Amino acid sequence: MTSIEDDPLLGQRVLAADLRDAWSVLDPEGRAEGFRYLTTGEAEEFFHELESFDRAQVVLHLPPVEQRWWLRGLPPDELADLVQEAPIDDRGRLLGLLDEATRKEINALLAYSEDEAGGLMNPRYARLRPDMSVDESISYLRRQTREKVESIYYAYVLDEQQKLVGVVSFRQLMMARGDARVREVMVTDLVAVHDEMDQEAVARIFAQHDLMCVPVLDANGRMKGIVTADDIVDVVREEATEDIQKIGGSAALDAPYLQVGFREMMKKRAGWLVVLFVGEMFTASAMARYADQIEKTWVLSLFVPLILSVGGNTGSQASTLVVRAIALGEIRLRDWWRVFLREMIMGAALGILLGTIGFARVFLWQHLFQNKDDASLGFYGEHYLLVGAMVTTSVLFVAVWGTLAGALLPFLLKRLKLDPATASAPLVATLVDVTGLVIYFTTASVILL
Amino acid sequence: MTSIEDDPLLGQRVLAADLRDAWSVLDPEGRAEGFRYLTTGEAEEFFHELESFDRAQVVLHLPPVEQRWWLRGLPPDELADLVQEAPIDDRGRLLGLLDEATRKEINALLAYSEDEAGGLMNPRYARLRPDMSVDESISYLRRQTREKVESIYYAYVLDEQQKLVGVVSFRQLMMARGDARVREVMVTDLVAVHDEMDQEAVARIFAQHDLMCVPVLDANGRMKGIVTADDIVDVVREEATEDIQKIGGSAALDAPYLQVGFREMMKKRAGWLVVLFVGEMFTASAMARYADQIEKTWVLSLFVPLILSVGGNTGSQASTLVVRAIALGEIRLRDWWRVFLREMIMGAALGILLGTIGFARVFLWQHLFQNKDDASLGFYGEHYLLVGAMVTTSVLFVAVWGTLAGALLPFLLKRLKLDPATASAPLVATLVDVTGLVIYFTTASVILL
Repeated sequence: MTSIEDDPLLGQRVLAADLRDAWSVLDPEGRAEGFRYLTTGEAEEFFHELESFDRAQVVLHLPPVEQRWWLRGLPPDELADLVQEAPIDDRGRLLGLLDEATRKEINALLAYSEDEAGGLMNPRYARLRPDMSVDESISYLRRQTREKVESIYYAYVLDEQQKLVGVVSFRQLMMARGDARVREVMVTDLVAVHDEMDQEAVARIFAQHDLMCVPVLDANGRMKGIVTADDIVDVVREEATEDIQKIGGSAALDAPYLQVGFREMMKKRAGWLVVLFVGEMFTASAMARYADQIEKTWVLSLFVPLILSVGGNTGSQASTLVVRAIALGEIRLRDWWRVFLREMIMGAALGILLGTIGFARVFLWQHLFQNKDDASLGFYGEHYLLVGAMVTTSVLFVAVWGTLAGALLPFLLKRLKLDPATASAPLVATLVDVTGLVIYFTTASVILL
Repeated sequence: MTSIEDDPLLGQRVLAADLRDAWSVLDPEGRAEGFRYLTTGEAEEFFHELESFDRAQVVLHLPPVEQRWWLRGLPPDELADLVQEAPIDDRGRLLGLLDEATRKEINALLAYSEDEAGGLMNPRYARLRPDMSVDESISYLRRQTREKVESIYYAYVLDEQQKLVGVVSFRQLMMARGDARVREVMVTDLVAVHDEMDQEAVARIFAQHDLMCVPVLDANGRMKGIVTADDIVDVVREEATEDIQKIGGSAALDAPYLQVGFREMMKKRAGWLVVLFVGEMFTASAMARYADQIEKTWVLSLFVPLILSVGGNTGSQASTLVVRAIALGEIRLRDWWRVFLREMIMGAALGILLGTIGFARVFLWQHLFQNKDDASLGFYGEHYLLVGAMVTTSVLFVAVWGTLAGALLPFLLKRLKLDPATASAPLVATLVDVTGLVIYFTTASVILL
């Protein structure tokens, strides 16, 4: 990032940079205080970069006169986000600082949930009537620019019922004959989204059609606002962050890592760890069930971590690939059978590869260290070929099972209307551990005993 | 997504939808053939939605006359991507289909790598001189719209050396006095990026400043093009997908899941699995080293999977949180010490929680099943309190170790100029498994023996 003009107020720049650095360790009062030390220009830039949650905090700690000033500078969608992030008790007071028209707009936006198209949209956009002439439209748009319409680059053509009938870019207007009608110039085959569409689906549409801007319609086709690509950049980042955090086995943090307090962080992380720990306790029961076998042939216990890790690793791999492909809309619920077949073959191929390496390990150790007659260096006894066969066979079965479990769990979760990303690497590993032990000891008892 | 106008050509719509569905199972010839059956409008929409790789394939399988037509319809940045995706032997021929000026532009773009700002930018943008009047500017921009400039919504003001001195929005021009000079209206304090800046960094700047468009400058401050938010939406999705796939323990797929062939998929997945498998083999050696202990006190082997899973789960959680925070720019290399302290406390807290649950498990099982004198149901012998203490202590140590290893590995990788996302859940689990065994058996020998 380079700034074109050298700034004479270098001291202020440093102050803003300092404030940015210290942000995560300051309390709300300290943040607001630091903020008030900035010059107006710096403060505006700084405020603009803040997330809604931080904006709400800063505004609430400013004197009332300044509060009004900062609120008025925000476009309605960001204003609604800010009000939503404020404590419930303060919301009414914040809304009271706005003029009547804006308050109405904000209340309409607050009716939408934050993660649907209606919660992202800006209700101010440039509008035209189909029967206007091009010349009338251009001067009408010039007037609309004064009312803080976010973008005049696309103008939306609405009929008397506020239904969207077409869109025209400013460029098209400029290139058209001045006496042509808007309806002759406008494009009618356009992409729009519903106000209750999930933000992830809206992001997919932006990506698919390379859009800069999309109109939002209610159930009756009436236009309610526009969503712009800069908002979608944030949505895509947020959604990916949530998915990644879930895949890693914690709840979504909903805030930057360094800004999550200890108690909050503990809550987000301990939940899944406890569930997984309790689930993993079944491995102790499973191991106990095979206690006789372990006592008789203790060499069996040597390979337990290796076999279980094969299940965990193949499972993590398959589940994250499938979770992401579902999130991107690359595979749908009805593709589960295709994924099942693919992953079964993939799991078998990976299992054969790893199993062969496992056999080579047993074989090599036996021949490298056989004269030493020392178990700690890998002497697996006269039946070492059977041990090798047992390792290879279990690795193959566990790899197929891990891969299939990892690949299908996200489908199951989606079918149950849960988030597929809940099929985290640790969850899949835990599920596969218990069953992996059963596979391993069953294989061992067939081959060895 | 709703289309505003009902389409009379419903048959064509179905054909396009069918083609979309069948796409992943068709060969290149079949794709091009299906594509040629679409009406012009449908084909344009379809072509627009395709990724560059698929576009190149389709174009290469069309007759030469049609090739020229489709290439000419693309903006230069997308054209350059398409040429880059074509086999090397075909690139010259494709470039030969373009007119001289476009070919020059494309060659300049091809000099940039795909994942830097220069590789994303469009070299066509609206430009003005600082000394033009507002009225001159408006009519000059009207003329530029005819030359397929991507966007006239921002016009960039360049001096004689092509250096960027300011930016002016069309809206600002419309609101200004007609005889004012551009230099009086333009904004000079603006955000720009370098042509060699990594696309991830560009995306961060878009997210931070909520931009729709950013100018790209070379090392001398000369303006080379613009990057728009719709391209950034794709970048953010791609980068997140790569990170997620790496976190799951495979190489980045670089293509939609269902479109990756078996051999390619095997290559992307087998590599890490083999490395992890070979690494995990050390657990067999570690277990062998404690063979005497296991033979004497076989109850030790029961808890091996449970203890190892604590390391894997806490490690996966910590590493994914830190990997994502680094990718979002929330934490930098120099924050490692703060993260270390946070995670040490977090690991200890999580370890105490899980260790307590583990102790309760041993205690309960002992009292629920003690009369049965049957090890398979959890009778841990007269020293069950020591067994409980051993489990609790190992869980605590392993949790702290897993959390710290997971949190710090991404920093280490970044320090070595590697991708922090390589600190995948399976890699961390494997690293922690071997050391986890050592921690477990050492703790056990201190407490039990």
